[in-house]
Amino acid sequence: MAVGLGPLPDFHAITGLRLGVARAGIKKPGRRDLVVMALEEGAQVAGIFTRNQFCAAPVLVTREHLSQAAPRFLLINTGNANAGNGEQGVADARTCCAALADLTGTAPNQTLPFSTGVIGEPLPVEVIRNGLPEALDNLAENHWAEAAEGIMTTDTLPKGATCRLELDGKPVHISGISKGAGMIRPNMATMLGFLATDADIEPALLQSLVSELGEQSFNRITIDGDTSTNDACMLVATGRSEAPRLTADSPHLNAFREALKAVFMTLAHAIVRDGEGATKFITIRVEQAASTQEALDVAYTLAHSPLVKTALFASDPNWGRILAAVGRAGVPDLDLSAIEIDLGDVALVRNGGRAADYTEARGQAVMDESDITIRVGLGRGEVNDTVWTCDLSQDYVTINAEYRT
Amino acid sequence: MAVGLGPLPDFHAITGLRLGVARAGIKKPGRRDLVVMALEEGAQVAGIFTRNQFCAAPVLVTREHLSQAAPRFLLINTGNANAGNGEQGVADARTCCAALADLTGTAPNQTLPFSTGVIGEPLPVEVIRNGLPEALDNLAENHWAEAAEGIMTTDTLPKGATCRLELDGKPVHISGISKGAGMIRPNMATMLGFLATDADIEPALLQSLVSELGEQSFNRITIDGDTSTNDACMLVATGRSEAPRLTADSPHLNAFREALKAVFMTLAHAIVRDGEGATKFITIRVEQAASTQEALDVAYTLAHSPLVKTALFASDPNWGRILAAVGRAGVPDLDLSAIEIDLGDVALVRNGGRAADYTEARGQAVMDESDITIRVGLGRGEVNDTVWTCDLSQDYVTINAEYRT
Repeated sequence: MAVGLGPLPDFHAITGLRLGVARAGIKKPGRRDLVVMALEEGAQVAGIFTRNQFCAAPVLVTREHLSQAAPRFLLINTGNANAGNGEQGVADARTCCAALADLTGTAPNQTLPFSTGVIGEPLPVEVIRNGLPEALDNLAENHWAEAAEGIMTTDTLPKGATCRLELDGKPVHISGISKGAGMIRPNMATMLGFLATDADIEPALLQSLVSELGEQSFNRITIDGDTSTNDACMLVATGRSEAPRLTADSPHLNAFREALKAVFMTLAHAIVRDGEGATKFITIRVEQAASTQEALDVAYTLAHSPLVKTALFASDPNWGRILAAVGRAGVPDLDLSAIEIDLGDVALVRNGGRAADYTEARGQAVMDESDITIRVGLGRGEVNDTVWTCDLSQDYVTINAEYRT
Repeated sequence: MAVGLGPLPDFHAITGLRLGVARAGIKKPGRRDLVVMALEEGAQVAGIFTRNQFCAAPVLVTREHLSQAAPRFLLINTGNANAGNGEQGVADARTCCAALADLTGTAPNQTLPFSTGVIGEPLPVEVIRNGLPEALDNLAENHWAEAAEGIMTTDTLPKGATCRLELDGKPVHISGISKGAGMIRPNMATMLGFLATDADIEPALLQSLVSELGEQSFNRITIDGDTSTNDACMLVATGRSEAPRLTADSPHLNAFREALKAVFMTLAHAIVRDGEGATKFITIRVEQAASTQEALDVAYTLAHSPLVKTALFASDPNWGRILAAVGRAGVPDLDLSAIEIDLGDVALVRNGGRAADYTEARGQAVMDESDITIRVGLGRGEVNDTVWTCDLSQDYVTINAEYRT
């Protein structure tokens, strides 16, 4: 059902980073469900994490390990989220890190653990431990595609993006993979994103890049408003490119940031395009808001309205539902007569009512597309913001009603 | 699909109030779609209305007329919401009032108009005008059941409640009808409620009763989080009972308030039981909150979580989704170890993880019921609050994807 989501790209290898994938049998036998990313010494890692207060054990452990040591491994399992497992969950995440450390001669806190899958079932530590040798055996710089598959849960397609640019005449590469599907909402959802570059980046800049670009991409997508306990987006810089080191005042920073942003955006949008049951990719742009908060309040109210989402699924230009959602978004003293709503290039609402030149046929033509933009002009200020979401179909319900069976 | 919703009761007549119903053919021919309630002189009317800022034309006009004159008629049409119609919508609502005034020798502002149905299509004023004589012809005190049917939209069953009590040895009666189905959310949704009593109530007390009891009932139900532009809940007191006048310090007020509250609750819960696609009636009780706001934040986050709602639909005790929803509800500095979650009488979560004596079989037994209570203890304070909702099924999507066709 993925909306306009193509096949994986030919990933550029990131020198200094190898990926290994195993079929450990965590939830179902025979599928890729365990990924190891091995970093050469000197690689920098920065990340952003779920804002759900019930954050999962691996998120707690990854944050702790990041603050203690230079990471050498990322260890990702699908099929089990290791969330809601109390202290045992934290102990289990540590055990997995220690097992990888034993096999590789590194310290346990040099492994960053990530889990995705069902909440509230004990992590099958032995199954994961038994899968590690296979993953380590096939570590290779060109295993991005296998890793993209190895982190999927209810995703129907693997997700990846890659690019090459030159800084000061020297090649730099960026590659990334992501997974999502449901429980996706701004503040990181059952969303995992792993991006890597061979650029040499000053550590504080690396963190600021993942924070800034993660905010503009992964933190602006929503499938269903639910925020997972496990989300993480990690950015690795191996520093193996010959291009000059990137710092906050580097002349090459803008070019690099734009390339990196494109990879963030592609990976984030891919999650929406493959949202559970999605048949439409929806861009919601709110303009002329007085603040970012009110722009996002309006955008997310639309993005989470079941009535708006089912109308989009039905390709029904039911603009009354959009109007009603704007009206309940909590914006104080909204001037209804100033509000403009457009569906694609068709004016829907002007002066508090249906636009004079609107016709059902014109609205229908936009709705029949698979990529649809809803623009809301609030007429209150200068702030614009954008959120991406998908429609709500019977298949979303079916997928989530049957997830554990 | 209505969950545990029985047939209409035998309504008690409310002396001083007659109901007339017509088949005007507003949206579809042959169905009851126009209701007139005629009040004898001296009746008091108070109401609460949608908080959606795009409130519909009839809401604007009803509020204006309430402030100007003693109401003699309530005029309700289904099939068209007369919302999103700008100034023409207001003019159309006024025209309908004037038409009823012409036929009855009253002033136009003695009619309160209400509309429910599709947003953004012009109100068919002539069709409504032509239906008025039929409605007036069959005005009768015992037409509550016909009126309950005449205000339905996507409701599968009509909704009503009635009771009789004695104050100071004299009989007092309360009857009411409501409609809902979708776009239902706390601050009044496509929810219409009309309650009437023959009690004699001091006007300020009447408004405080509808505000207080509406808050505890209609403003605590949610189907899908969408707030309609048209909601209204009206309470009429005809004053024809021989029981003593009710004032704020009346010794009989508590008994009357409890009886009235039961009618409010029955009508509000009936809307949830007949929520679009509902197969379960869910009570969400949040206890030990530090404030009403945080109790409601947690309750509504659960009530609107598509993942929680689909798990309820699937009868799947997927408590991880409940836990994750509590964690994203925005309660500051939540102490995860203090949180308790119960499903019916089964402890689900204790100390940040699955309760020690929880078994899937026990959770499944609760989930298999059609009426399910989720209790969340936050361990932060003394405030308790309750919200009622339903599950999310494929049928919800189907109903809302096909509404206009």
